[in-house]
Amino acid sequence: MKLYMFDDSRLGVAAEDGTLVDITATVPADVPALDRMTALIEAWDDVRDQVAAAASAGGGAAFEDVTLRAPQPRPHNLVAAPVNYHAHQGEMGGENGVYKGMVIPTIEEAKGFFKSISSIVGPDGRIELPLAGRRFDHEAEVAVIIGRTARRVAEEDALSYVFGYAPVMDITLRGPEDRSFRKSMDTFTPLGPCIVTADEVADPTDIDFRLTVGEEERQASNTSYLIYGVARLIAEYSAVTTLHPGDVIATGTPEGVGPITDGDVVTLEIAGMDPLVMNVVDVSA
Amino acid sequence: MKLYMFDDSRLGVAAEDGTLVDITATVPADVPALDRMTALIEAWDDVRDQVAAAASAGGGAAFEDVTLRAPQPRPHNLVAAPVNYHAHQGEMGGENGVYKGMVIPTIEEAKGFFKSISSIVGPDGRIELPLAGRRFDHEAEVAVIIGRTARRVAEEDALSYVFGYAPVMDITLRGPEDRSFRKSMDTFTPLGPCIVTADEVADPTDIDFRLTVGEEERQASNTSYLIYGVARLIAEYSAVTTLHPGDVIATGTPEGVGPITDGDVVTLEIAGMDPLVMNVVDVSA
Repeated sequence: MKLYMFDDSRLGVAAEDGTLVDITATVPADVPALDRMTALIEAWDDVRDQVAAAASAGGGAAFEDVTLRAPQPRPHNLVAAPVNYHAHQGEMGGENGVYKGMVIPTIEEAKGFFKSISSIVGPDGRIELPLAGRRFDHEAEVAVIIGRTARRVAEEDALSYVFGYAPVMDITLRGPEDRSFRKSMDTFTPLGPCIVTADEVADPTDIDFRLTVGEEERQASNTSYLIYGVARLIAEYSAVTTLHPGDVIATGTPEGVGPITDGDVVTLEIAGMDPLVMNVVDVSA
Repeated sequence: MKLYMFDDSRLGVAAEDGTLVDITATVPADVPALDRMTALIEAWDDVRDQVAAAASAGGGAAFEDVTLRAPQPRPHNLVAAPVNYHAHQGEMGGENGVYKGMVIPTIEEAKGFFKSISSIVGPDGRIELPLAGRRFDHEAEVAVIIGRTARRVAEEDALSYVFGYAPVMDITLRGPEDRSFRKSMDTFTPLGPCIVTADEVADPTDIDFRLTVGEEERQASNTSYLIYGVARLIAEYSAVTTLHPGDVIATGTPEGVGPITDGDVVTLEIAGMDPLVMNVVDVSA
């Protein structure tokens, strides 16, 4: 199933007739609007059949008549995998991943970093570049959405903790600032438009994705090239940090990272998911 | 005023008669328990007089009869200032802050980093060291609690965005992992016991604090030695990341950082605030 948040943070599911069916009533009315997707994920075992029935019944709104928001606007944690494709390590550090005499550490050393959840934006927003005269890059990634509380999970059990997957961009300021700071600015985590439930992703180690800027293809890869795959990431992160239902893991970006500037249109397409299309705007003035 | 969370995430204020008065009813009953301090801060202009009256009236619970929790368990952002005291830069990198041929960057370059909010723990918890054979350090800091939404705030206006201050420790794994990862493990952000409202802190640029491990004094400094003071930090962070009511800024740690191990008792004392006392436990087995 494909799940959405739309308009004033309502929950929706894509129906077989091509409409978007409102399923907000599957979570209690007193759940804060921004926590509705988390509540839906927490209640999933009990409401899954109800949501599936709504998807079969159809008769919802036309997608063009609603405003799609980020499908998970307030996770507890937004954690990301640094340098999790070897070919990206190469481009970050030149030949053999060496930069200024230092080897660019891959995920095996750096492990992970946390982003501000304030940086999440949906397809209704824009990527806003806040500083003049600086370089900002796109990074295309597959996001994992956690389904249940994960603490010290073994790699072989880890995929059972996945609720679903979603397109995510990890927008990045280049420069000397701390990595988590360069990636946590407002609008630097475009997410969505949908979350695809895990049962619809046949093999998370074989997901094709590509990112274009305008007509130009910049990144094209497959999760089979990840250094740490989805299961390993969940095992590594849950070993030291409790992951909560609705938490988001950005799994890392492949080679092809490049600059974005005012007026660009960045599109992330992941097999089996809706494309994420974001406009870039310079807001430094 | 000194504000607390206690027992099952109830809100409290320290009363003039030495008791803890329950003020949970100042926020709507449908606010999730972990969001109550945020809700209190958002409503502060309207409920401040009511809370002050409760503090004057007294007649609450004895502090020894309640369990004190982290006073802000679920901020939107938990952002921290890296290397924000020159003397700490020196000890991190040896003479002149140079380490392996590289100058350890101060806050002027690194700016900030984000921690997982899963890492927050209250005085009711413990510092849990999750990995065997690794070094973990204490870092004593003064936390700033944001009072209202801050976006692109000028330094001269920044202190008007402060709700209050609190003791915080930034527990740190030493090693090659990304900074935000090394500092985001469960229980690595002890916070509390109280938040002291800003009107009771005469001068945030002159706050004495010290940290002891057992009987040994490890860190003793004053916020006057901060490279970026409280106002500058709010200006720098809000320039790129929206800060929300209840967000927490850890302002940085001075020299004296050192290892903690199983069985240690770490105490952070900040002038005008209650001491934060934490036991350290090795949970790697």
